[in-house]
Amino acid sequence: MTKKFLLKESEIPEKWYNIAADMVNKPLPLLHPGTKQALKPEDLFPIFAEEVSRQELNQTDVWIDIPEEVRDKYKIYRPSPLVRAFELEKALDTPAHIYFKNESVSPVGSHKLNSALAQAYYCKKEGLTNITTETGAGQWGTALSFAAKTFGLELAVYMVKVSYEQKPYRRSLMQTWGAQVIASPSMSTKAGRKILTDNPSYQGSLGTAISEALELAMETPNCKYTLGSVLNHVSLHQTVIGLEAEKQMELAGEYPDIVIGCFGGGSNFSGISFPFLRHNIKDGKKTRFIAAEPTSCPKLTRGVFQYDFGDEAGYTPLIPMFTLGHNFSPAHIHAGGLRYHGAGTIVSQLLKDSLIEAVDIQQLDSFKAGVLFAQTEGIVPAPESAHAIATAIAEALKAKEEGVKKTILFNLSGHGFVDMSAYDQYFAGDLSNYSLTDADIAKNTDLLEKLV
Amino acid sequence: MTKKFLLKESEIPEKWYNIAADMVNKPLPLLHPGTKQALKPEDLFPIFAEEVSRQELNQTDVWIDIPEEVRDKYKIYRPSPLVRAFELEKALDTPAHIYFKNESVSPVGSHKLNSALAQAYYCKKEGLTNITTETGAGQWGTALSFAAKTFGLELAVYMVKVSYEQKPYRRSLMQTWGAQVIASPSMSTKAGRKILTDNPSYQGSLGTAISEALELAMETPNCKYTLGSVLNHVSLHQTVIGLEAEKQMELAGEYPDIVIGCFGGGSNFSGISFPFLRHNIKDGKKTRFIAAEPTSCPKLTRGVFQYDFGDEAGYTPLIPMFTLGHNFSPAHIHAGGLRYHGAGTIVSQLLKDSLIEAVDIQQLDSFKAGVLFAQTEGIVPAPESAHAIATAIAEALKAKEEGVKKTILFNLSGHGFVDMSAYDQYFAGDLSNYSLTDADIAKNTDLLEKLV
Repeated sequence: MTKKFLLKESEIPEKWYNIAADMVNKPLPLLHPGTKQALKPEDLFPIFAEEVSRQELNQTDVWIDIPEEVRDKYKIYRPSPLVRAFELEKALDTPAHIYFKNESVSPVGSHKLNSALAQAYYCKKEGLTNITTETGAGQWGTALSFAAKTFGLELAVYMVKVSYEQKPYRRSLMQTWGAQVIASPSMSTKAGRKILTDNPSYQGSLGTAISEALELAMETPNCKYTLGSVLNHVSLHQTVIGLEAEKQMELAGEYPDIVIGCFGGGSNFSGISFPFLRHNIKDGKKTRFIAAEPTSCPKLTRGVFQYDFGDEAGYTPLIPMFTLGHNFSPAHIHAGGLRYHGAGTIVSQLLKDSLIEAVDIQQLDSFKAGVLFAQTEGIVPAPESAHAIATAIAEALKAKEEGVKKTILFNLSGHGFVDMSAYDQYFAGDLSNYSLTDADIAKNTDLLEKLV
Repeated sequence: MTKKFLLKESEIPEKWYNIAADMVNKPLPLLHPGTKQALKPEDLFPIFAEEVSRQELNQTDVWIDIPEEVRDKYKIYRPSPLVRAFELEKALDTPAHIYFKNESVSPVGSHKLNSALAQAYYCKKEGLTNITTETGAGQWGTALSFAAKTFGLELAVYMVKVSYEQKPYRRSLMQTWGAQVIASPSMSTKAGRKILTDNPSYQGSLGTAISEALELAMETPNCKYTLGSVLNHVSLHQTVIGLEAEKQMELAGEYPDIVIGCFGGGSNFSGISFPFLRHNIKDGKKTRFIAAEPTSCPKLTRGVFQYDFGDEAGYTPLIPMFTLGHNFSPAHIHAGGLRYHGAGTIVSQLLKDSLIEAVDIQQLDSFKAGVLFAQTEGIVPAPESAHAIATAIAEALKAKEEGVKKTILFNLSGHGFVDMSAYDQYFAGDLSNYSLTDADIAKNTDLLEKLV
């Protein structure tokens, strides 16, 4: 029986899928924080490459060309395999068929390279010499480091301090690919200095790191900022995952009843989901889409739908999102890539309209699922991806209980080779679950009503 | 232009290639250390699974069936891609075409799983419950950990102490797959206790770890020993690499002028080389085969061809090999998998007969090559594999100098995700080259003449 469903390099998608064009209820607009007016692409040009600024606000073109230079770099690792998890199915004794899209085969170890190559390409093409970014667990930073090197750009990465210390190998990877890496909060920016002055022991958050990277980009000539998740253009680039998976599920002769992705800002979830979701919207398919977030950072399951800033310091436009508040400081879980306070505008609108679902996963359950996956399918997953695995396992066990055959597809967004200290701590019993009270959440979200 | 040449799962080889059957000058026999008589398979049964004991001494069957259960597990990652290194070629501005076989895609991150799955399968089939092994850098140990878990065996791994400390993530990987890991030398065996008594600060060697793993296997009921390199049956299992590469080079429309593998005990070098070498032996091809060893452990370029023990304590049969002496203690280079004193019998005979070549690579040159490869092709190589890359680069530059187009194929035996501390040290300027004097080498090799 076939285990891995492969495509040829010539089958790498030629266009990204822009779900905004197909949505009946469009996402609400980004707003200028001063004027409260809806942003136009030009308003984003000072921050982002012009082409991605246009992509960000594009709600009309269903398909957007992937530049040939980007497709050419995609060949380094794409198309990625679709894999039938026979051994996991056997261990669960489930009638469900479980498939995973293996994005861990990218040389940087995660799906993040899909957007990093695109963003670096556009920045280079528009004549920039320098770019900045932030990174949580380090997956986006490593991806952008290689992408920047590939297209000949200098890169500065602000890495959330807790991850900088927990994941030294990701810092090493970024440096191997030639990037400069700074632990955030740092003293190199006004935003960082303010936070460190208020709270010298603060271990950082994606929101803070974004503020620092934005500030550096705005103060450096010939330099722009890039972001690895949350925004629409990032999700757009990630649709290569689902577009390939669609063809590969056809090769397998199945169509997914359930599609699952772990959820930080939304890019890998969107990437695997949107191409299938278009068939719910347009062709009457009834696939369920489940975003798996950590219990410690439950923006989708317990956040509010409000305009909020994308960063700690309030440098970004106002974004309509499910959010825990831009000052929310999540627990130091090892799935650092899921420690973000808000969800992208498209995903937020889809959740509001019940076109997708969300679940929360406790840290210990995610590691338990990760170990079972490693011991059956061989691949040690990233702690982030283990949230998707835990959800897939829960759905497969539900199918077993109900005695129905379900076809489950999840995105294995990355491997855990550089996260082994987290597994060590899990085996040693040193990891905890985290639960938030309603008051914990209200503390930050109650402030949001004043923003717009 | 095609970058990755892929095969279907149905094209995973059905047989391993046994070069011993095709060699005109057969390797000399293994000898019983007491009687000095040539060993028969039955003499190896107390140590190894019976089927691999037969494979070890088989000099008649050119092709040996791969069990269907092993081929089925190979599907987790095989066939591995053959990749054209366009970006590396461009960086070198060479007329050479450089290809690499990417064995780093295995879930354990190296080629070692090719033999681990086979050995674990045979042990299980013969009714064993426990197995032991040693590991240097940890690549063999991680591979066998997953293989043992897959086939339901308990595994104890003796890990060379210097690697245990340098590479904690590999220890974590083994534990994630359910193995017990002991730093060697340890106090758990007579061999370990003796060495620690003589030299309490000894940082270990593969030879010592082998002694410990052998001793534990011999003293545990229903338990046998497994080895990840050096021996003929290990090289046999690794020929899936070269057999796939042969078909893939056909897809690329080329045939290699030069085939390169890094060299520890010989298994990945043999795996990529032997299937092509058979066309030198039988079809008059003139491909060059280059084994790349570290300057600090130069058994092929500066060792003697003598009977020697495979381990420090002298538990193994006497093996005819190029060797630095079984008491040779190599420098603590980061390419831990290349720190072994001897070469397998087949490779030794082939080198003696000038059918293959060997070069030595300094540690700093290997890291320089590894970084260039990472920055061009994206994949951060294992320090071991970086020796093959350095050799491929040297040959590509020679082709440039001579103005000739050469087709170069090397084996990327593994990735470096769990070796990032070595890259950190390289960038910090904390790594050294190591050179040996003739007296350093003679000290251990002069003792060998008395053995037989």
